[in-house]
Amino acid sequence: MNFFEKLETRIYSSQTYLCVGLDPVWERIPKHIPRTQFGLLDFLDQIVEKTKNYAAVFKPNFAYFESLGVSGMEVLREIIDRIPQEIPVIGDAKRGDVEHSSALYAKAVFEKLKCDAVTVNPYLGRDSLMPFFDYTNKGVFVLCLTSNPGASDFQFPELFLKIGAKVSKWNVSGNAGIVVGASRPECIYELRKICGKMPFLIPGVGAQGGNLERTLVSADDNSKIPYLINASRSILYASSNEDYALHASNAAKELRDKINLCRSSL
Amino acid sequence: MNFFEKLETRIYSSQTYLCVGLDPVWERIPKHIPRTQFGLLDFLDQIVEKTKNYAAVFKPNFAYFESLGVSGMEVLREIIDRIPQEIPVIGDAKRGDVEHSSALYAKAVFEKLKCDAVTVNPYLGRDSLMPFFDYTNKGVFVLCLTSNPGASDFQFPELFLKIGAKVSKWNVSGNAGIVVGASRPECIYELRKICGKMPFLIPGVGAQGGNLERTLVSADDNSKIPYLINASRSILYASSNEDYALHASNAAKELRDKINLCRSSL
Repeated sequence: MNFFEKLETRIYSSQTYLCVGLDPVWERIPKHIPRTQFGLLDFLDQIVEKTKNYAAVFKPNFAYFESLGVSGMEVLREIIDRIPQEIPVIGDAKRGDVEHSSALYAKAVFEKLKCDAVTVNPYLGRDSLMPFFDYTNKGVFVLCLTSNPGASDFQFPELFLKIGAKVSKWNVSGNAGIVVGASRPECIYELRKICGKMPFLIPGVGAQGGNLERTLVSADDNSKIPYLINASRSILYASSNEDYALHASNAAKELRDKINLCRSSL
Repeated sequence: MNFFEKLETRIYSSQTYLCVGLDPVWERIPKHIPRTQFGLLDFLDQIVEKTKNYAAVFKPNFAYFESLGVSGMEVLREIIDRIPQEIPVIGDAKRGDVEHSSALYAKAVFEKLKCDAVTVNPYLGRDSLMPFFDYTNKGVFVLCLTSNPGASDFQFPELFLKIGAKVSKWNVSGNAGIVVGASRPECIYELRKICGKMPFLIPGVGAQGGNLERTLVSADDNSKIPYLINASRSILYASSNEDYALHASNAAKELRDKINLCRSSL
């Protein structure tokens, strides 16, 4: 089964479009968790265990693990290994380099860390992306329009629409998706027109305040896997007490239900 | 001493503008080297030892180490630690993410791996770059115009000139540089006009065939640290025999001398 088949199966069987981002930082992790490699793994283990019924995918952001040094990378590898087989893992690595180096990044993410999909940066163009696309059973989400304030510096419509169009063209194996922030639904709508049935990975609905309903209307394409809605902090840090996993579970369920309710009223 | 002071001291004392890229791949490493973490470290150790007299900086590309898994990251950390203190290390990581995640990548590269400088991707704009610039004693080379074929997909003049201009503006601590490939000297010239005395990190002179003399003319700004000329494969794999380190040394010396000869005739 390739990534998008696995994802479709997951979405269809669990009725969820929620992507749970795994972005652990000690400053926000409950105080009773030991500040060790094992404490971090326990925390993530509990989050995965209690949110897995509501997660279409999990998405660890590599920055959070790399900032802890080599031991953080060991935790990343281990938590990916522990996520139930039926739930795909997107490695949020935002990689991108010249061809040969990209091939090695692809190897790191897909072979060493065993992610089912990856996020990549398009700035270096086609030959920087193809080594990722070449793993035809893996998914590749290309950054297109991000949800941060800096998106307005260089991500002008002529650029992100061109990226959407080129990625559509390069998507010969059908394993590409794009990352589009929820902050500008009208742009999501434009990208949908260009990208056809390509899945969208959409951050920015939670803490960053994007409008869920307008986002879903704009991103929909009547397919089974039109998009994934990401939330990280609002789930991971729903509580800073010992019952954090229960609160994470509730927050994930609530957002899953909210997305489904929005979808049913479209 | 901040990064650019350290770099200027190095360039001035050793009379070299050469950046030696550390991009190890087993396929090209001499066959007698054991295919282990320790074999890899020995190989890099020898390369560093025999090329250090000609290197202004060393630049390990993270992709090559990450593709080997966690043990590769241990080699990366160890070789950075072994590079002589007086030679700055540029972590060629090409990172870039939303603000908080970028701050963690900066922590990983500067604090955990102890690099003196980093390469970053500008696509996510100002808030993705500032966390790197905030390490005011470290250097930050922003990808601007790359030397790979895919550069022609999205890196149009209106974009890379804007990136050069914005980075110049955001460079309030004077610790920014840009990455400009040697493949298009006329663009280097345009960027020099925009970027003033900002140092350029220039790949693409060796294996990728950029013209050295035209590159140096275009990139010069009459300062002590106008640029660094990168070469990786042509030095690391100058020989596939047991005398590889000697050949690497000769290749590094030759390119160092060629750069200096070009400079003296400008």
